[in-house]
Amino acid sequence: MKRLLVLAFFVLLLIPTAIAQILKSPDGEFTMNFSLSSAGSPMYALTYKGKTVIKPSRLGFELKNDQKSLLDGFSLTDTKSTSFDQTWKPVWGEVRSIRNKYNELAVTLNQKETNRSILIRFRLFDDGLGFRYEFPSQKNLIYFIIKEEKTQFAMAGDHTAFWIPGDYDTQEYDYTTSKLSEIRGLMKKAITPNVSQTTFSPTGVQTSLMMKSTDGLYINLHEAALINYPCMHLNLDDKNLVFESWLTPDALGDKGYMQSPRTTPWRTIIVSDDAREILASKITYNLNDPAKIEDTSWIKPVKYIGVWWEMITGKSTWSYTNDYPSVLLGTTDFAKAKPNGTHGATTKNVRKYIDFAATNGFDAVLVEGWNVGWEDWFGNFKDYVFDFVTPYPDFKVSELNDYAKSKGVRLVMHHETSGSSRNYERHIDTAFKFMNANGYNAVKTGYVGSVLPRGEFHYSQHLINHYQYTVEKAAQYKIMLNGHEAVRPTGIARTFPNLIGNEAARGTEYQAMGGNNPNHVTILPFTRLIGGPMDYTPGILELDLTKVNPNNNSPFNSTIANQLALYLTMYSPLQMAADLPENYMKYADAFQFIKDVAVDWDDSKYLEAEPGEYITVARKAKGTGQWFLGSVGGNTARMSNISLSFLNPGRKYSATIYADAKDAHYKTNKKAYTISKVNVTSKSKLSQFVAAGGGYAISFVEIK
Amino acid sequence: MKRLLVLAFFVLLLIPTAIAQILKSPDGEFTMNFSLSSAGSPMYALTYKGKTVIKPSRLGFELKNDQKSLLDGFSLTDTKSTSFDQTWKPVWGEVRSIRNKYNELAVTLNQKETNRSILIRFRLFDDGLGFRYEFPSQKNLIYFIIKEEKTQFAMAGDHTAFWIPGDYDTQEYDYTTSKLSEIRGLMKKAITPNVSQTTFSPTGVQTSLMMKSTDGLYINLHEAALINYPCMHLNLDDKNLVFESWLTPDALGDKGYMQSPRTTPWRTIIVSDDAREILASKITYNLNDPAKIEDTSWIKPVKYIGVWWEMITGKSTWSYTNDYPSVLLGTTDFAKAKPNGTHGATTKNVRKYIDFAATNGFDAVLVEGWNVGWEDWFGNFKDYVFDFVTPYPDFKVSELNDYAKSKGVRLVMHHETSGSSRNYERHIDTAFKFMNANGYNAVKTGYVGSVLPRGEFHYSQHLINHYQYTVEKAAQYKIMLNGHEAVRPTGIARTFPNLIGNEAARGTEYQAMGGNNPNHVTILPFTRLIGGPMDYTPGILELDLTKVNPNNNSPFNSTIANQLALYLTMYSPLQMAADLPENYMKYADAFQFIKDVAVDWDDSKYLEAEPGEYITVARKAKGTGQWFLGSVGGNTARMSNISLSFLNPGRKYSATIYADAKDAHYKTNKKAYTISKVNVTSKSKLSQFVAAGGGYAISFVEIK
Repeated sequence: MKRLLVLAFFVLLLIPTAIAQILKSPDGEFTMNFSLSSAGSPMYALTYKGKTVIKPSRLGFELKNDQKSLLDGFSLTDTKSTSFDQTWKPVWGEVRSIRNKYNELAVTLNQKETNRSILIRFRLFDDGLGFRYEFPSQKNLIYFIIKEEKTQFAMAGDHTAFWIPGDYDTQEYDYTTSKLSEIRGLMKKAITPNVSQTTFSPTGVQTSLMMKSTDGLYINLHEAALINYPCMHLNLDDKNLVFESWLTPDALGDKGYMQSPRTTPWRTIIVSDDAREILASKITYNLNDPAKIEDTSWIKPVKYIGVWWEMITGKSTWSYTNDYPSVLLGTTDFAKAKPNGTHGATTKNVRKYIDFAATNGFDAVLVEGWNVGWEDWFGNFKDYVFDFVTPYPDFKVSELNDYAKSKGVRLVMHHETSGSSRNYERHIDTAFKFMNANGYNAVKTGYVGSVLPRGEFHYSQHLINHYQYTVEKAAQYKIMLNGHEAVRPTGIARTFPNLIGNEAARGTEYQAMGGNNPNHVTILPFTRLIGGPMDYTPGILELDLTKVNPNNNSPFNSTIANQLALYLTMYSPLQMAADLPENYMKYADAFQFIKDVAVDWDDSKYLEAEPGEYITVARKAKGTGQWFLGSVGGNTARMSNISLSFLNPGRKYSATIYADAKDAHYKTNKKAYTISKVNVTSKSKLSQFVAAGGGYAISFVEIK
Repeated sequence: MKRLLVLAFFVLLLIPTAIAQILKSPDGEFTMNFSLSSAGSPMYALTYKGKTVIKPSRLGFELKNDQKSLLDGFSLTDTKSTSFDQTWKPVWGEVRSIRNKYNELAVTLNQKETNRSILIRFRLFDDGLGFRYEFPSQKNLIYFIIKEEKTQFAMAGDHTAFWIPGDYDTQEYDYTTSKLSEIRGLMKKAITPNVSQTTFSPTGVQTSLMMKSTDGLYINLHEAALINYPCMHLNLDDKNLVFESWLTPDALGDKGYMQSPRTTPWRTIIVSDDAREILASKITYNLNDPAKIEDTSWIKPVKYIGVWWEMITGKSTWSYTNDYPSVLLGTTDFAKAKPNGTHGATTKNVRKYIDFAATNGFDAVLVEGWNVGWEDWFGNFKDYVFDFVTPYPDFKVSELNDYAKSKGVRLVMHHETSGSSRNYERHIDTAFKFMNANGYNAVKTGYVGSVLPRGEFHYSQHLINHYQYTVEKAAQYKIMLNGHEAVRPTGIARTFPNLIGNEAARGTEYQAMGGNNPNHVTILPFTRLIGGPMDYTPGILELDLTKVNPNNNSPFNSTIANQLALYLTMYSPLQMAADLPENYMKYADAFQFIKDVAVDWDDSKYLEAEPGEYITVARKAKGTGQWFLGSVGGNTARMSNISLSFLNPGRKYSATIYADAKDAHYKTNKKAYTISKVNVTSKSKLSQFVAAGGGYAISFVEIK
C-alpha cells in the first residue's frame, strides 16, 4: 500500500503542467475544455456543435491588501465528474415541470506558494454552461476581500450584441444593438439620464448580455444565484473581444467580502443556433437551489390593476398635499394639511378600482401613494423617508381591505424605500405585520434614487444582501414580493418562489417619460427575463397619453395589439393591466383579451424568435389547458408565419385574433387594431401581419 | 400704521453692519457677545469674571455641492432674550435634583443673497455657555449636506490641555498633558495602537477637551445632545490657537445630512476658576431634553460583577472551541465541537459568580462570551457575526436566569456587535424579546473593530443614529443599556435614562493590555465624564496580573486604595466590581468597601480637584443618607487635606479609611494599603497621604 502511494506520487509529478479536462454536455453537442496554463492559471473554453463559443479564457481573482492573487500558480489536485438528471415542478412558471440535466466537472486547484485551494465547478447542460468558484474551508483562505473577479469570456468573433451600459445603480436603459467593436463608440449615446446611475467604463455592459455571431450562434452571458456577492457586469477588451467580469464595488471600492466555505454565483453561458432555445432555457433556475419554502400554497400568480398609471402619466400624484416644503415623519401633521386635489390613492378612487377589478376578474389592486411621505420622497438621500404603516388621511386601510375582500379582490401593498435600505429594514417587521393584519398578501417594493447607506450602490454586496433579506423576510410572513429598482433577478425565485416579480429594466413607465425603442420588448426576453419574470406593466390601450394628461406628450412606441401580445411574450406570474379603468371601457373589445389571458402555464412553445426582431410564443394555461398566443415585432413591419401544431390534434378551436390593422404603426397609427375570429386545428397555419412596434395576440377556445 | 412701517424700514437700514448683542449669565460673571462682522459673518466671544475665555470666533457652515456657504453675508433679522429657571430630578445621578438656570439669546440671521435663515441659540449658565444652530423650516434651505461645520473656539492663550488624538473610531487613548502649541509635536506619540482607529490631523483632538489657562481658568469644550449628527472633534490652528469644529465624515466624506427644521447638537464651554466646579457642572444634561420615558420605575442603578476580567487578562476565553477556522452561524455545529477548556461563560462558572454576587450583595452578573460566534468575532469586517440568541452548548440560559432569580440576582446580557451595525439592527427585536423572556433587564453592547456599513466610522452620522436607535429600542423593551465602543455620551441619558453607562474611553481593561497612565483617572472626570457616566470597571484588587494569568505582565498602574476610591471619583449608576471572586476573597477587608459603597446619590461635594493631579469627592447615598468619600491621586504622591464639613453638623460618625500605605506606589508597591477607623464630625479635618497612582476611600457610619 505504501509502495503504491509512492508510485502515485511519482506519477503525479509526471503529469504535464498544461492539464486538460474535457466535459461534454449530455447530448454531446457542447464541449468544455478546462486546462491550466503553463503559469498555472485556470482556463476554460467552450464549443457548440464544433463552433467556438468561448476561446480559452482565464479564471480567477485579484485580492485586496496585497494578498497573493488567485490567478496563477495553481496545480490540479482533484477532479470529479458526475452526471445529474432530475425533474422538478416550479410553483409557477412557463412550464409544468423542468428537467435539470447536466454533466458536471469539479476541479480542485492548489496554489502551492500559499497552500490555498479553490474548486471550480462546471455544469454543462444541453443548452449551455454554468460554472462557479468554490472556496472550501481551509486554514490559509478564511476571510478575504475580492479586488476584482477576473473571469474571462473570450469571444470568437465580433458578434452583434444587445446591450445596455454597465451601471452600478440602474438597468433602466434602452438597448443598443451593435457589433462588440462598436460599443465604445456608442456608449455615450447609450447612457441616457436616470435619477440614480453610476456607469464605470466605455466598454462596460450589463448581464444578461445577448449576442449573435455571424455564423449563427446565439450566446447569452449572465449569472445565477446571486446571493451575498456583488452583481457582475462585463467589461470588454474590445481589441481582443474578451469580456471580463467587473463586480460592483462597495463604499470602499471593494468587490466582495468572503469567508470560506463559500461559493460565488454561477456564471452562465447559454448557447444555441436557434434563438427560440435561448428563450426556453431553464439553466438559470436549474443552477439555483430548490425551494426553501415548504408550504407554497399561499403563492399564487396575480393579474392586477393599480392606482399607478395615473401618477406615471402625471394625471394624479402620489403626494397628498402641497403645504409642506418637506416632511418629517411623526411631526408633519397631515390631518391639518390641505389636500392638493390630485392625490391618486384616495378611498374613493381605490373603491372604483376595486369595483373594476371585481367586475373584470382581476385578482388584485395595487395602490401607490397611500402612505405619508411622498411630498419629498426622493433625491435627498433622506434616511427616515417612509414608515410603511401610516396612511394619508384620505386612504382608509381597513375599510378598503374589507371592501376588497367583500368583492373577492386583494389590495397589493406598496413599499417605496427611496433607496433607504436601513430604514426599510428597521420597519420591515412592523410593515409586514401590518400587511398580515390588514389583508395584504403581496408587496411591491421600490428603490428609487441613491442608496443609503451612502457610498453603496444598488448592486453592491451590501444591497444584494438586503434584497435577499427582504425576500426571505417576506416569505416568513407569507408575503409575495415584487421588487422594483432592485438588482436584476438570477433565478432566485426557484428557491424563494414568493419573489414573483422584479422590475430591473426599462419598463412600460418609460413610455410615459420619453418612450422606449419599439423593438425593446423583442430584446427583454433574451436579456432581462433570462433571470426571472419582469413586472413590465403592459396593457396600455390609450396610447395617446395626452388623452390621460394633456401635458404628457411622451411618444408611446407601441400598438394596441403589441400591448396585448406582451401578456404572452413577457412571461410573468404577475401581470398588470396597467391602464386606467376608463380607458379599458373605451377599448372594451381589446380589453377582453386582457381579461381572458392566463398568468400561469403548463407549457410554452416558442414559435418564432429573433432578438430585436420578433418573438412569438404559444402557452397553455395551467389547469384549464386553454392556449394563448402572443407575438411582438420590432422596428419594422413583418409577416409572422406560424404553424398551430401545438394545438391538440383532432380538436377544433375558435381563435380570436387581436392584430394590428394593416396601417398600424407604433408612431403614426398606434391604435389601429382588428379583432377577428377563425376556426383552426393543429394542422392550421397562420400568416399574420405585424406592424412596426406591433404584434398580435390570440386566444384559442376549443369548440366542443 | 403704514407710515410707521416705512419709518421702521429706514431705521433698520441705519443699523450698522457690526451689530453686537450682549448676553449675561444669571450671576453676571459671564458675558457673551454676539456680533456680525462687516462681511456679515456671525461671531461670538465669551468672558468670565472679566477674563477672556473665547476671543471673537466665527460661526457657520460650509455646504456641499457648491451650495453657497452659511458663513457670511448675514444680517440680523430678529433677536429674542429669555430667562429660564427650573429644577428637575434625574432618575439616577450625583445629586437628587438639578437646577437648570440660564439666560438665553436667540438671534435669527438672514442671508440676503440666498434668502436663507438660520438661528443661533445661546444659553448662558452660571457655569458656562451652550449654543447651537437651528435651521427653521423654509423654502430655500430644506435639504442640505454639511461639508464642514466651521464653529470656532479662539483661545485667549497657550493653555495647558488634557487631550487625546482626534479619531473617527476610538477614544481609547491615554491623555497627553501639554500646551496647545505642543500638540502637533506630541501627536505621533499620542496615537497608540487600537484595533480600529482613524486619526485625521496632527492638531486634531477629541472632546470633551479640558484646558487650564495660565491665569487660572478651567475651560472645557464639549457638545450636548448629539443626535443624528456627526460627532464633533476639534482641530487646532496652532499658530493662532483657534480650535475649529471637525465633524466625522461618512463613507462619501460628507459631514451631516440635514433637513430643516433641524437643530445641531449644542456646543458647550464650561468655565470656572475652580476646577471642582467643572466636575459639578450639569450644563450637558441641562441642554438635553427632559426624559422621554414616562415610567422609569424599571431603571435602577446596578452594582455588578462579571465573567469578564478573566477573559481580559487572558486567563479564560470568550470562545468555546478551537475546532473551526471560522464560524458560519446556522451552519457551524457547536454541539459537535470539542470545547477548548478555557471558555469562561460556562454554566458552572456562572453559577459560581451568581453565588458570589448573592453572598456579597451585588445586583447582577455580566456574562460575556455566552453566545456562539466568538471564535472569529472581529477583525474581518464580518457581517453576520452574532445572532444574540444562541448560547454555546455549555451555557444554559434559562437554568442560569432561574438560578440567579432564586438568589435575588440578575444576569446582564452582552451583545457584542463587532461593529456590524446592520446585523445588530436586524436581530435587535428578537434579541430584546429573548432578554425579556429570559429575565435579563440590562445589556452591555460592544462595537469592537471596524464598522459596517463599510466606509462608515464609529462616530459618523449613520452610526450616531444607530446608537440612538438602540437606546430608544431598548427603552421600548424596558432594557437598560451600557454601550461600549459607541460614541462618547453627550447627556442623552437625561432624555433616555435607560442609557446607564458607556465606555467610550480607555477603561480599566487597558491595565491588562499595557497599562494606563497613573493619573488617567484624575483626567477622565474632567473629560469623558462631562457627557455622562462611564463603565470604567474598577475594583481590581489583585494588581499583580501574573497571579491571574502567568503570561500577563501588563503593568497595572494603580494601587488597591486607588481602585476603591474610583467608586466615588468615577461617578456611574452602573459600577462593576471587576475582579475575580477569588481575588476578592483574598482581599476581603478591602473588598468590604466595594460591598458597602452606594451607586446612587442624593448629593455630591467635590472637595479637591485638579485635572491630572487629584480629585476628592464626598457623596451622600440616595435613601440611606450615608456618606462615602473617594480621592484619587496622579503621577506623584501627595497629602490630601480636606474638611469633613459636608457631614451633618452635630452628628458623630465612625469613618473607615481605606488608604495607601506610606510606601505604596502604583508601580513598585501597588498592594500596600491600610484600613483604619476614626470617629469624626462635621468639624473634623483630615490630612491623608495619597501614593503616586494611589488614593483613599472612606465610608462614614453615623454613630447613634
